[in-house]
Amino acid sequence: MPGEFDLIEKYFKRPARHARLGVGDDCALIAPEAGVELAVSTDMLVEGTHFLAGTDAYRLGHKTLAVNLSDLAAMGATPRYAMLALALPGGDEAWLAAFASGFFALAEAHAVELVGGDTTKGPLNVCVTIVGEVPAGRAIRRSGAQVDDDIWVSGTLGDAALGLAHLQQRAALRADEAAHAVSRLEAPTPRVALGVALRGIATAMIDLSDGLAGDLRHLAEASGVGARVEAAVLPVGAPLARMPLAQRLGFAIGGGDDYELCFSAPSAATEQVLETGARCGVAVTKIGRMVGRRGATAALVVVDADGNPCATTVCGYDHFKALA
Amino acid sequence: MPGEFDLIEKYFKRPARHARLGVGDDCALIAPEAGVELAVSTDMLVEGTHFLAGTDAYRLGHKTLAVNLSDLAAMGATPRYAMLALALPGGDEAWLAAFASGFFALAEAHAVELVGGDTTKGPLNVCVTIVGEVPAGRAIRRSGAQVDDDIWVSGTLGDAALGLAHLQQRAALRADEAAHAVSRLEAPTPRVALGVALRGIATAMIDLSDGLAGDLRHLAEASGVGARVEAAVLPVGAPLARMPLAQRLGFAIGGGDDYELCFSAPSAATEQVLETGARCGVAVTKIGRMVGRRGATAALVVVDADGNPCATTVCGYDHFKALA
Repeated sequence: MPGEFDLIEKYFKRPARHARLGVGDDCALIAPEAGVELAVSTDMLVEGTHFLAGTDAYRLGHKTLAVNLSDLAAMGATPRYAMLALALPGGDEAWLAAFASGFFALAEAHAVELVGGDTTKGPLNVCVTIVGEVPAGRAIRRSGAQVDDDIWVSGTLGDAALGLAHLQQRAALRADEAAHAVSRLEAPTPRVALGVALRGIATAMIDLSDGLAGDLRHLAEASGVGARVEAAVLPVGAPLARMPLAQRLGFAIGGGDDYELCFSAPSAATEQVLETGARCGVAVTKIGRMVGRRGATAALVVVDADGNPCATTVCGYDHFKALA
Repeated sequence: MPGEFDLIEKYFKRPARHARLGVGDDCALIAPEAGVELAVSTDMLVEGTHFLAGTDAYRLGHKTLAVNLSDLAAMGATPRYAMLALALPGGDEAWLAAFASGFFALAEAHAVELVGGDTTKGPLNVCVTIVGEVPAGRAIRRSGAQVDDDIWVSGTLGDAALGLAHLQQRAALRADEAAHAVSRLEAPTPRVALGVALRGIATAMIDLSDGLAGDLRHLAEASGVGARVEAAVLPVGAPLARMPLAQRLGFAIGGGDDYELCFSAPSAATEQVLETGARCGVAVTKIGRMVGRRGATAALVVVDADGNPCATTVCGYDHFKALA
């Protein structure tokens, strides 16, 4: 098989556009615009932990970048640069070509430049670091939610977890529904435009990578408020809508990999949020409200149509605890 | 064992100092100084490829950061921020505590802030992305070497490869020499101060991670020149100095993991280079000269004391080709 440097040259070296210097030196060089802050995030995806062995390489290339774009979206940052580190067990060039195609198709859709990285031998592991720009002081943090703010999510919840259940033969789905759910799992759409458009509107934001129950709790804790979510209004697709509530909640609030945005906004901004979603082509749904929180009160409560807490032990996805 | 978020909280969350926002949100936020460019590099270290199973966790934490600092040094950039992604097979907290200690000891020595990352389950894999600053336009690239420039290296060459040979029982060493060589392999010293001090002096620079033969060839090719290296003057430690030339060259130019700097500078700068090395506490040795290169001439020639090319097939380290 070709060596490390041949692989980098062949599949990952593209001319630098905005970067001062791209792939091919000890470091990439980037020159930030005046008045911006850089948002930086790293995600590592491991075979058997984050994706099943045998996952389509094109989709994996897409997802690798998508999960990082989603982190930028959650700060309201515009994507600019990516670094890609890749450990590969062997030298399957067809796999690598497909992976690179999936990665670059999404990168080009968002004008992201791959400016550096590392290619090495090892158990399949993909680590991307992404750099975005946001006007100074305007990033949307997790910590800005206020009591009485509404809680919103984009898109639908639980599709990816349902897709995983289908692949693991834990759920029986119609063929078209299965294809949709698996596509949501393997090729998620990061809500980049929506995240940027919510600057100045959302008071706090997070992306849903580990499930609403865990991620919204992180947001509420960072903001020092409580989150009260109405189970009946959680946006779900048709297969989940047909399920009994407890089972539906397992997917919709306990399932990871949605890569939707969850954010808070004042009630007065309702029309503005709806218009912003419409302009970005993403449904946005109000799912609850931030409440005051005292002492040992739970940071997240999910209530049924009568306002009673749902019996749910769903705690959000944890890569050390949850995956078999 | 504790979950992902507990581990991050316990071992990796430190208060942000220069960063606008550190560990704990979807992204870190950094605000570059005016007039600087950011140098960014990523290195992935995989058990069995870059380090032996059972490597001391403290040293691995050190090395993980050291190899990235070395990339910044090779650009003349000042280290600022790091992101750490870590896949761990299990939940050995003592291991993680030692790893974090080694990482942070070196980070603090260079005022590097850990601003984000990812912790997940998987075969042991450590991926660091590092961000440094360099005054705009003053980074030292690989591509600036000129014909007749001298070629220099810092420190000594081949110690790390000798340390690996010792651990793999391919070399017999005195106990003190073995400890030194293994320490050079497992806990390399990145030449950060020297790299920064060489701005305006070195015309091109690279760090020696894959062996002089490969790395200097990359530099020469990027600069469009040839490199002529004198075997007899390569700086080596006592155990290598006792070896026959061919064997010594195998370690000194073919061995990876030295993390010394190799750079070119005009002959007129000789005194300045020597003074700079002395000021930074690092020996610097002139090992050859850049020459003109036509057509298919080799980018790197190593010559003996009589000026004849050494018979060497050493080609530099390649993670896909070289490691058993």
